[in-house]
Amino acid sequence: MGRQGEALNLRETTGWAARDPSGVLSPYTYALNETGREDVYIKVLYCGVCHTDIHQTRNELGMIRYPVVPGHEVIGEVVEVGSEVTKFRAGDTVGVGYVVGCCRSCEPCNSNNEQYCNKKVFSYGDVYPNGQPTQGGFAAAMVVDQKFVVTIPDGMVLEQAAPLLCAGLTVYSPLSHFGLKQSGLRGGILGLGGVGHMGVKIAKAMGHHVTVISSSDKKRTEVLDHLGADRYLVSSDPTQMQEAADSLDYIIDTVPVFHPLEPYLEMLKLDGKLIMMGAINTPLQFASPMVLLGRKTITGSFIGSVKETEEMLEFCKEKGLSSMIEVIKMDYINTAFERLEKNDVKYRFVVDVAGSNLSP
Amino acid sequence: MGRQGEALNLRETTGWAARDPSGVLSPYTYALNETGREDVYIKVLYCGVCHTDIHQTRNELGMIRYPVVPGHEVIGEVVEVGSEVTKFRAGDTVGVGYVVGCCRSCEPCNSNNEQYCNKKVFSYGDVYPNGQPTQGGFAAAMVVDQKFVVTIPDGMVLEQAAPLLCAGLTVYSPLSHFGLKQSGLRGGILGLGGVGHMGVKIAKAMGHHVTVISSSDKKRTEVLDHLGADRYLVSSDPTQMQEAADSLDYIIDTVPVFHPLEPYLEMLKLDGKLIMMGAINTPLQFASPMVLLGRKTITGSFIGSVKETEEMLEFCKEKGLSSMIEVIKMDYINTAFERLEKNDVKYRFVVDVAGSNLSP
Repeated sequence: MGRQGEALNLRETTGWAARDPSGVLSPYTYALNETGREDVYIKVLYCGVCHTDIHQTRNELGMIRYPVVPGHEVIGEVVEVGSEVTKFRAGDTVGVGYVVGCCRSCEPCNSNNEQYCNKKVFSYGDVYPNGQPTQGGFAAAMVVDQKFVVTIPDGMVLEQAAPLLCAGLTVYSPLSHFGLKQSGLRGGILGLGGVGHMGVKIAKAMGHHVTVISSSDKKRTEVLDHLGADRYLVSSDPTQMQEAADSLDYIIDTVPVFHPLEPYLEMLKLDGKLIMMGAINTPLQFASPMVLLGRKTITGSFIGSVKETEEMLEFCKEKGLSSMIEVIKMDYINTAFERLEKNDVKYRFVVDVAGSNLSP
Repeated sequence: MGRQGEALNLRETTGWAARDPSGVLSPYTYALNETGREDVYIKVLYCGVCHTDIHQTRNELGMIRYPVVPGHEVIGEVVEVGSEVTKFRAGDTVGVGYVVGCCRSCEPCNSNNEQYCNKKVFSYGDVYPNGQPTQGGFAAAMVVDQKFVVTIPDGMVLEQAAPLLCAGLTVYSPLSHFGLKQSGLRGGILGLGGVGHMGVKIAKAMGHHVTVISSSDKKRTEVLDHLGADRYLVSSDPTQMQEAADSLDYIIDTVPVFHPLEPYLEMLKLDGKLIMMGAINTPLQFASPMVLLGRKTITGSFIGSVKETEEMLEFCKEKGLSSMIEVIKMDYINTAFERLEKNDVKYRFVVDVAGSNLSP
């Protein structure tokens, strides 16, 4: 790219990539985009591990170009900024999420909902309009347009902040958008992975009464004693479920596989909202009278906007909120994927990228 | 009931009732409730014929007690009022809809959403808490608590006003509740029966751009030229449907049988709402990514409240809006049911009750 010396070194980085739908990650060295006028060159410090990373590295959603370096809960330090970057300077601690580009002219883009732009660019496995592939945060460095970079507030424990950028945002955004931020509401959290555990924490911090609905009794103690939920229901117990009918203002549904919706619609009050987070391949079903006779809503939400990310980070800072994580090195990532598939983590893996040996 | 002379005659009335799940109606004479302190005794003038009346007279929803006199779009004249009735006096022209009782203490009741009260009493086929059965508007008279009676604004053509009390309300209520009253919105109407045609008229009167989505091309001319819709789409034409993707703020879905939801979810913009009106026995299906990736809403709505009925009537009066109807006599009702089942009416039958011979 016509650069020399130190500048040239900046243009190459090493990450861990999948080469094919096996989804197995291994070291991969590739050219970074140049730091354009609006770009921020970021040295990656930490990166959270989201279930979507597993789906995507296996190309289960059919949109991936290999090799692909996943990772979209990125905490890093700014190394270099483009000539027109005003939001950041070298040394800043910043975050990057799942979207790094959008058309900037459609209705979603014009209303700060760029995550719903039909031309959004994902932070990995995707391509920029110029054809350059995007690669994610399981790498030493990333170059990202300043529009999609956020400041991490001072005082946050950085490795714990990483999961806020997807898991935290994914629950904060719909609670904010659907008018569910005020205290006193009664919420339900269905499924207790990375997103679900942030759902409990954020909903509690908003002053809600929080019910966790789980398929078994296994997590009762940890959910009530350590996560701070108010009520724990086992979905297979019809008596418990019946007693909870008409009791919730909303349910955050993080279950990523087919499940019947009626038991949860039943738990909602008049005007209650069932908010789905999981892109599920099998069609879901519902009985229309259960929706009509209570004006209940089935809806969904997809991560959140940059603006909401900034709000969410401020909210978490103000409330002293963070995620519960297990920190790993990069060479553990394939084992972490296996454990994550079995939901064997409390509640999010975070890769200490800067502290890992990324080389082959 | 211990009354004599004229007062005694008031306590008996004749309507047309179904005796069994054949749903065939014939004359039936029965005792009316006494006019309690809060009650209004109404001489029925007109009563609209809703598809639900067919389902209910056949007990297809499993909640009916026979004999049952259907009819829940009632226009009448006040004959007598109870001692504590303040809203009405003899001679007033009034309307009654589908709900004539509620608990008055639950959350829905306390928020003017009594149509969602779990203890609501339907205007026919149901029982009051004291065990007295309710009978509807295909009868010479009804006795109804003043809370569930509305004033028909001066100047309305009464037979055309009857369908407003269910069909009109059913579309007005969700547009109002979901913040869809402002002009400039783009709405879709799916299905063109009594409710659908009111959907076109009310949405147009709100200043919306209205698309009618139909299964065939048959109704194009009448919909565009006579009902005043802006666009007509045939749902079986993939090109037309594709061109309409991402174009609507809401769809009012009046189809009362199973149908795929994806083609309509596809037509909604970011944050668009698919609002279902039909209680469908077969479960409906949707692909969760279509909801997530656009934050779209599947919801439903059930008639509307008394407060919304009053607002809707004022709105219709102000806009000069009414329904398009075919007036019939009571002895035509069984034929009307048959025709209504085939959707062979533009767009609502209304029984001229006061002008009919109701006797055996």
